Amino acid sequence: MSQILISEMQIAIEEELQKQVGILNQSPTVEYFEMLKYHMGWSDELPNRKAGGKRIRPLLLLLLSAARDPNYSWENALPGAAAVELLHNFSLIHDDIQDNSDMRRKRPTVWKIWGIPQAINAGDGMYALSNLAILGLTENHQQNVVNKVAALFNKTCLNLTCGQYMDMSFEQRNNLTLEDYWPMISYKTSALISTSTEIGSILGGFDDNGQEICRQFGHYLGLAFQVKDDILGLWGLEQVTGKSTTNDLVTGKKTLPILYGLKQKGAFANRWFEGNISAEEAPLITEQLAREGARKFAEDTVDQLTALAHKNLQIMAPQVSVGQEIFELINMLLKRAT
Amino acid sequence: MSQILISEMQIAIEEELQKQVGILNQSPTVEYFEMLKYHMGWSDELPNRKAGGKRIRPLLLLLLSAARDPNYSWENALPGAAAVELLHNFSLIHDDIQDNSDMRRKRPTVWKIWGIPQAINAGDGMYALSNLAILGLTENHQQNVVNKVAALFNKTCLNLTCGQYMDMSFEQRNNLTLEDYWPMISYKTSALISTSTEIGSILGGFDDNGQEICRQFGHYLGLAFQVKDDILGLWGLEQVTGKSTTNDLVTGKKTLPILYGLKQKGAFANRWFEGNISAEEAPLITEQLAREGARKFAEDTVDQLTALAHKNLQIMAPQVSVGQEIFELINMLLKRAT
Repeated sequence: MSQILISEMQIAIEEELQKQVGILNQSPTVEYFEMLKYHMGWSDELPNRKAGGKRIRPLLLLLLSAARDPNYSWENALPGAAAVELLHNFSLIHDDIQDNSDMRRKRPTVWKIWGIPQAINAGDGMYALSNLAILGLTENHQQNVVNKVAALFNKTCLNLTCGQYMDMSFEQRNNLTLEDYWPMISYKTSALISTSTEIGSILGGFDDNGQEICRQFGHYLGLAFQVKDDILGLWGLEQVTGKSTTNDLVTGKKTLPILYGLKQKGAFANRWFEGNISAEEAPLITEQLAREGARKFAEDTVDQLTALAHKNLQIMAPQVSVGQEIFELINMLLKRAT
Repeated sequence: MSQILISEMQIAIEEELQKQVGILNQSPTVEYFEMLKYHMGWSDELPNRKAGGKRIRPLLLLLLSAARDPNYSWENALPGAAAVELLHNFSLIHDDIQDNSDMRRKRPTVWKIWGIPQAINAGDGMYALSNLAILGLTENHQQNVVNKVAALFNKTCLNLTCGQYMDMSFEQRNNLTLEDYWPMISYKTSALISTSTEIGSILGGFDDNGQEICRQFGHYLGLAFQVKDDILGLWGLEQVTGKSTTNDLVTGKKTLPILYGLKQKGAFANRWFEGNISAEEAPLITEQLAREGARKFAEDTVDQLTALAHKNLQIMAPQVSVGQEIFELINMLLKRAT
C-alpha cells in the first residue's frame, strides 16, 4: 500500500503553513518573519526536510476530515491543519526557553540565536497566527462549525498551558508518582493530538458520536506516542531518533519509565535520590532501570494504548483507503527505532 | 455630571474578569491560578484597587457598545470587555520579562516571584483565556458577528507582537528617527485601544461607516495616551503616576520627546550619544531636553491627537449620556498630572 494521500497532504500542509506565516513577510517585520521561518525549518541553505518536524498533527486532522464523507474535500480543512501545527510550534518555541534547551532538531533553538525576549515574542506571534488560521476556515465552512472548532482549539491551548505548568512544577517535586504522570501528559501532549483528530472529524462531517470516537482515537494515540517518546529518550538509537539517550536521566526528567523505577524502591531509586546523574554514569543506570522492569512496563503500556487507539479506529470505520493510510501513520509513529 | 455608568461598568468588568480567569481555579492548577490572580490585582491582603490597573480598554469597549442603540444592553458585551483586558495583561506579563522589569504597579512582577519559565506560561494562559472570552460572545450575539470580532481580535494580537518586535529591535538601533516612532506605537499601544472601541461599535450595532469612526476615535486616543505616557515618564509627578521620571533616560528608552531631542542635534543629543546616563544626572538632562523644545513638542502632539479623537467622537454622535461619560474618560486619561 503506497501512501499517496499522505504525500499529497504533506505538500499541501507545507504550502498552507507558508501562506499563513507569510502574513509577516512585510517591510517592518522581515527579521521577525525570519525567526518564524527558521523555526519552521524553511530557512536552511540546503533542503532540510527534518528541520520542521513530522507534521503529525495536521496530517491526522486532514486524514480524519477525509475519513467519512467522500464528498468532503480535505483541502478545505487546510487552514485548520495549519492552525494545529502553528499552535504546536508556538508551544515548542516557549518550551525551549522554559527548559533551557539549546538545540532542537539538530539546530540551535530560536532563543539561542535571537535571545529570550525576541523568542518569547516569536512564540506569541505563532500563537496569534494559529488563531487567524482557524478563523480562516470560515471561507469553506459554516459559521457555527468554525465557532465550535475555535472554542475547542482555544480550550486546548489553555490545557496545554495547564500541562506545561504541571510539568514545570513536577521538576521541583520529589514525591511524584505514576498517578501524577497521566494528567500531565494528557494536557501537555495528547490534548493537541486528540483536538487535531476531533477538529478533522467535525469538519469532515462525523456526527456527535463519531466525533467522540475520533477524539478518543487521538487521545490514546497521543498517550502512546508520548510513552514511546519516553522509551526512546532512554533506550532509543541516537542515530535514528536524533535524541540523546542520556539526557532524560541527566536532567532528571520524570518520564514514565523513571517514575516506574522510583516506585520499585530498588537500586535505581536509591541512586536517583542520591543526586544528579552524570552523562558517563547514565548508560549503566539505564541498564539497571531496564532490569527492574521499567522498559518492559513502558512497552506494555504503549501496546495497550495502541490497542485502544486501534479499537476506536475500528469503531470509527473510516473509508477503506483513508483508514489504510491512518493505519500506516500509526505504525510509523509507534514503531520508531529503539 | 456624575460617572454612574462608568462605576457600574467597572464593577461588572471586575466580576466578568474573575469569572473568566476562574476557569483555572481547579485542583491541579490552583497555584497557576494564583499567578494570574496576583497579576490581575486580586490577591493582596489589603484591598488594592490600583494593583490591577485602570481597565481602560474594557471600559472603552463597553461605552462604545452602549453609544448607539438604546436597546443594546452593554452587559452583553462583557465577555468582549474581559477579552481585551486579558489580552492587554498577557502582553504585560511577557513585556515585564522582556524588559527585565522587576516592579509593576508598585509590586514585584510575576516573573520576579515565580521565575521566567512559569511567567511565560502564565502569559500564554492569559492569552488563551482572552480568546475563550471572545468566543463567549456567541451566547448573546450572532455567529457571524462573533467571527468578525474574533478575527479582528487576533489580527490585533499579531500586530501587538509586531509592535513588540519593533520596540525591542529599536533598543539596538542608534539611528532611530521620529518617523520610526509612529508605526511602532500604532502597533504596540494604539492597536488594542482602537480594537476595543471598534469591537464595542460592532457589538453595539454601528454600521460599517460608524465602526470606522469608532476605530479612528480609539486610534487617536491610543496615540495621545502613549505620548502622554512618554511625557509623564520624563516630567510626571512620581507620587501621582507611581512611575520614576529618571527611568526612561537611564534605560535609554526611545520615547517621542527623546527622539525629538536627538533630531535637534544639540547639547541633549551630544550627551545621549556619549553613553549611559546615570539616575543622578537624569534631572539636569531632562531640563536640557525641555529647553530644546521636546516637552512643548510632545504636549502639542497630545493636543493635536486629542483634537482628532474629539472630532471623531463628534462625528460618531453617541447618545448624550454615554457621550458625556466617554468625554470624561478621555479627560481622565489625558489630563494626568505632569
